[in-house]
Amino acid sequence: MPAKAAMPTKPSFAPVIENQDAKGRFIFVCEHASNHLPQPWGDLGLTGDQQAAHIAWDPGALGLARGLAQRLDGVLIHAPVSRLIYDCNRAPDQGGAMPASSEVHDIPGNSGINSAERLARTEAIYLPWAAGLHNLIARRLALGLQPVLVTIHTFTPVYFGKKRQVELGIIHDADRSLSVAVLTAAQKQTRLNTQLNAPYSAADGVTHTLRLHGVPYGLPNVMLEFRNDLLSSPQAEQAMADQLAPVLNMGLAEIQKQAKAS
Amino acid sequence: MPAKAAMPTKPSFAPVIENQDAKGRFIFVCEHASNHLPQPWGDLGLTGDQQAAHIAWDPGALGLARGLAQRLDGVLIHAPVSRLIYDCNRAPDQGGAMPASSEVHDIPGNSGINSAERLARTEAIYLPWAAGLHNLIARRLALGLQPVLVTIHTFTPVYFGKKRQVELGIIHDADRSLSVAVLTAAQKQTRLNTQLNAPYSAADGVTHTLRLHGVPYGLPNVMLEFRNDLLSSPQAEQAMADQLAPVLNMGLAEIQKQAKAS
Repeated sequence: MPAKAAMPTKPSFAPVIENQDAKGRFIFVCEHASNHLPQPWGDLGLTGDQQAAHIAWDPGALGLARGLAQRLDGVLIHAPVSRLIYDCNRAPDQGGAMPASSEVHDIPGNSGINSAERLARTEAIYLPWAAGLHNLIARRLALGLQPVLVTIHTFTPVYFGKKRQVELGIIHDADRSLSVAVLTAAQKQTRLNTQLNAPYSAADGVTHTLRLHGVPYGLPNVMLEFRNDLLSSPQAEQAMADQLAPVLNMGLAEIQKQAKAS
Repeated sequence: MPAKAAMPTKPSFAPVIENQDAKGRFIFVCEHASNHLPQPWGDLGLTGDQQAAHIAWDPGALGLARGLAQRLDGVLIHAPVSRLIYDCNRAPDQGGAMPASSEVHDIPGNSGINSAERLARTEAIYLPWAAGLHNLIARRLALGLQPVLVTIHTFTPVYFGKKRQVELGIIHDADRSLSVAVLTAAQKQTRLNTQLNAPYSAADGVTHTLRLHGVPYGLPNVMLEFRNDLLSSPQAEQAMADQLAPVLNMGLAEIQKQAKAS
């Protein structure tokens, strides 16, 4: 931690919620929207290039999620702090919540952190995040709005020196129904190289949000992973939102049809 | 709702947490600890006898849970409001969250409630409850305390006119490991008529707390249901805690042994 940081007693970083009163069913979630590295933690010893890289956030995810929320009259919730301080898609006892390394990069400020520091980051970032998302879902359940949970992520085109061919990964946790329906729709409606459970799957520990906030309430849920070179400008983000909005509507319509038939 | 009730704009009922800094692994949960019927809802049109009956709360559960928390150096969290206003073991879109009837009793104050009222009760009771329990678990995960979730309930000996033989029901959700281990220990250590998934099971929608707070974090978890005629006095509650504390320790030791062996 940088010596200049004066530690306030209780920092707290609430999630940002946009279009809260949306009438549509979709809730878009961006755990890795921001590469902001606020005090009292600061830059964690990273260079400017590292702070701008995919290890600190999911470039393009927020713009795309915002575009989808606008097109589908959905809610958007996103975290205001870099995943390197606390990764809101990880539980407090998972190493990846405050990773000591990411891909080929060491994170000096996360090396050997003790349990008091783990607790402080959990209280400052994860608890308000989890409460914000939970309350959003619970309120919409109470109102009969039948929420659908979609988490929006991006991944780097080159990982550990290897090129990735997949362009859109569709990842599920215990309930695969919406994922399979969205996969089918994406393969029909777009030319994207779309794959199920790529470049990761639930076995890699990446479905914490779906598992904690979607599955227990029986919400239709899916995690979408976009290769970030396809979202390298605001124009590209909006073009992708144009492509994906009808795909999500088709996927949801398909599982509604299946539910009626069963 | 009684005419005398003046509706405050934002009532809020936080859960009660006891022994918060406990060093043991057990978190005891009592969603139905209280038959308190506070304003602005009041008595929901129920008689005094109905307010004292099992439909409003789980008689004996709080005293027993408190006794277990003391013996096992566990945390205790309990809801301060009757389940008839909001049942904290139900999601906001489940009918049982604000039931219009319970066993043979109509609940007049819960008849035909609209979505604004569902939202108001969810915000006043369920959201602070869920945040309190979630934060308790997340903090202990951050500290490496490996929490174990045990929900404590009681049931009436006569239901819809029929006598129940089971004295201790052990109920699981997706992860049955701790339930089976506790069942084995109870059958070995006590003379209680102990049964798995009786008098209810997850299929009846009674495992919401386990499903929302235990399963997603991979916590060992179990729901215990005691016949309430066995807990008819503070002495009986303490005697039951004396019996059950070693049973829970044995069950936990067994799954730790299994985890090491696998």
